[in-house]
Amino acid sequence: MSVNELIAKFHFSKLLNGNPQTKSIVLLGSIDDQNAIVTIEKSHFLVDHEKDFSLASLVQDSEIINQNDIYYWSKVLLAQNLNDSPSAKLNLIFPATETHIRKYAGQNHHYVRETPEMYNKFVVPYIESQKGDRIKWVYNILFEGKESETFVYHDTDPVTGFVLLPDMKWDTINMESLYLCAIVNRMDISSVRDLNSSHIEYLVNIQKLIKKVATEKFAVQKDELRIFIHYQPSYYHFHLHIVNVKHPGLGDGIAVGKAILLDDVIENIKVTGDYYQKRTIGYLLGENHGLWNIDGYREAHQDSIDN
Amino acid sequence: MSVNELIAKFHFSKLLNGNPQTKSIVLLGSIDDQNAIVTIEKSHFLVDHEKDFSLASLVQDSEIINQNDIYYWSKVLLAQNLNDSPSAKLNLIFPATETHIRKYAGQNHHYVRETPEMYNKFVVPYIESQKGDRIKWVYNILFEGKESETFVYHDTDPVTGFVLLPDMKWDTINMESLYLCAIVNRMDISSVRDLNSSHIEYLVNIQKLIKKVATEKFAVQKDELRIFIHYQPSYYHFHLHIVNVKHPGLGDGIAVGKAILLDDVIENIKVTGDYYQKRTIGYLLGENHGLWNIDGYREAHQDSIDN
Repeated sequence: MSVNELIAKFHFSKLLNGNPQTKSIVLLGSIDDQNAIVTIEKSHFLVDHEKDFSLASLVQDSEIINQNDIYYWSKVLLAQNLNDSPSAKLNLIFPATETHIRKYAGQNHHYVRETPEMYNKFVVPYIESQKGDRIKWVYNILFEGKESETFVYHDTDPVTGFVLLPDMKWDTINMESLYLCAIVNRMDISSVRDLNSSHIEYLVNIQKLIKKVATEKFAVQKDELRIFIHYQPSYYHFHLHIVNVKHPGLGDGIAVGKAILLDDVIENIKVTGDYYQKRTIGYLLGENHGLWNIDGYREAHQDSIDN
Repeated sequence: MSVNELIAKFHFSKLLNGNPQTKSIVLLGSIDDQNAIVTIEKSHFLVDHEKDFSLASLVQDSEIINQNDIYYWSKVLLAQNLNDSPSAKLNLIFPATETHIRKYAGQNHHYVRETPEMYNKFVVPYIESQKGDRIKWVYNILFEGKESETFVYHDTDPVTGFVLLPDMKWDTINMESLYLCAIVNRMDISSVRDLNSSHIEYLVNIQKLIKKVATEKFAVQKDELRIFIHYQPSYYHFHLHIVNVKHPGLGDGIAVGKAILLDDVIENIKVTGDYYQKRTIGYLLGENHGLWNIDGYREAHQDSIDN
C-alpha cells in the first residue's frame, strides 16, 4: 500500500502528544483495525541566504491581531507547494506496537514546590528505591571501563575524581550541539539536596577541570559552556551537564524548574551552607514519574501549590 | 497604515536569522525607506483534545519521501485558513532602530558571571541609558490604556498593582502555549538586582493573584504554570513571564542562565534579604547586547570566567 493510501485509510482515535515549540502533533489511529501512529511536524522555511524573501511571494493572506507603537502582530497564510515549500513532514508507523504508543504518548506535567518536609518524607525513601541495579550502568562507566573509549577525561580518585564523556544526546560531531556529561566517582551525593558548604571547594575544582578539559579538547571557549545539574535528576548519582551555549534547543532539560546552574549551586552554598537542605525547590514532574505515584505525595504537592 | 498595507510595501533586503527548531525566520527590509523587521513563525496545530484529527481534513496533498519496514515518511501540504488554522504568525517592527536590528540578528553568546562590582560599574549606568523613550510602550500599556482590550487583569494601584496580558509570543488560541506577561505599575524595580527582603509580601501577592486570575480565565491549573523573570531582562521595568508547563521549551527564554523562577526569587530573599545585591549572577549575553559593547565590560567578564 502506498503512504497516500495509508493516510487516506487512517482512522483517528486519539491525540497522543503535541509540541508547540517544534509545531508537531502525534496522532494515534488505526488502519484496517491495526494501530498506526502519525507524527506531523511543520516544516522550517527554506533558508537560503541568496534567496529573496519577498513577502509578496511568501504571504498569501494576513489578518492583524494587534499593534502597539511600532510593533504589529498578525496571523498569516503562507504560500505552500509540495516541491520546495511543503507545509509539514508526516511520519507514519504502521502497524504500531503498544511500546510505540507508550513511547510517543505525552504525559501531563505539574509544577511542584518541594518543601524540605516533602523531601524527607517522600523523596529520600524514593531515592533509596532507585539505587542498586537501576544505576548499575553508572557504576559500569565509573569502575568497569564501560564506554571508556569515549572518555574525554578520567580521574580515578575515589573522592575528587570523575569521568567526563559525551552525552548520548550528542552526535559528537556538531560543535554547536556539544553535550558532555560529568559523572563523579563518590557515591554519597544523590542530588543537589545533599550538597552543603563542605562541598564548595570540591565543586569549584570540578567546574575548573571541566572547563579546562573541554576547551582543550573541543573548539569551544570557557564562556561558551553552560554547566548545570537537574533536580529531579534522571538518576540519583551526582552528575553534571555541560552544553555549548549555541545549542539550538534542549527543551525542558535546560529550563528553570529542572536545570540549576552549577554556579548558582556554588554561590548558594557559599552564602548559606545548608541552602539546599532548608529551601523549598520548585520543579516540573511528569505524571509517569515514580514520585508522582507515591501515596500522599500529590496531596502534599497540592497543599504547597495552593499557598 | 494597516499591517496588510505595510506587508505589501515591505522591501526585502536581508535574512537576519532563522531557527529550524521553532520554524521561524527574521527578515530585514524597508518600508518607505525606513527599516522594518519581520518575524514569521509557523503556527502550532490547534490542539484540542475533543477535536477529530481526521487526516482527510488536515492533509491536502502528500508525497512519499521514503519508507523502511513499518516506518514511512512523507512531505505534505496542510489545509490552512486564517480563522482557526493560520499557517504562521507574522510580527512586524516598523520603523525599526539599529538596536532592534542588532537584537534580532544572529549573534554569538557568552556565559557571563556578573559580580556585584560588575553590576554597579557597568549595568547600573546601562540601565539608566535604557529608560525613557525606549520603554514608552510599557507606559502606554500601564497608563494609557494601550492594548487594554486584551488585558486579562488590571489593578491600578500605583504600588501593588499590575497588568496581566497575553504576551506577543502567544497566538492567544493554543492553551498549550499559553504565555502571559505581568507588568507592574511601580517604577522602582529595574531588575532582580533591585529586589530584597522588603519585596517578599509584594511578590507573594502578585504570584497568588496571577495564579488565581490565570486559572479562572484559562483552561489551566495552578500547578501547570511556570512563572519566572529574566536577567538580563529585555527591558528594565519589572515584569514577569507566565507560561503553561506544557510549553516544552521556549529556547533560551526559559533556560537557566536567563530565566529565574519567581519562587526562587522569593525563597532567596526570604533566606538572605540582600541575596540579589551580593550574589554573582550567571547569564548568557549576546555580542550585540549593549552591555557587551561597554568599555571594560568584556575584560571584567573574562577575569570572572577564568576563575
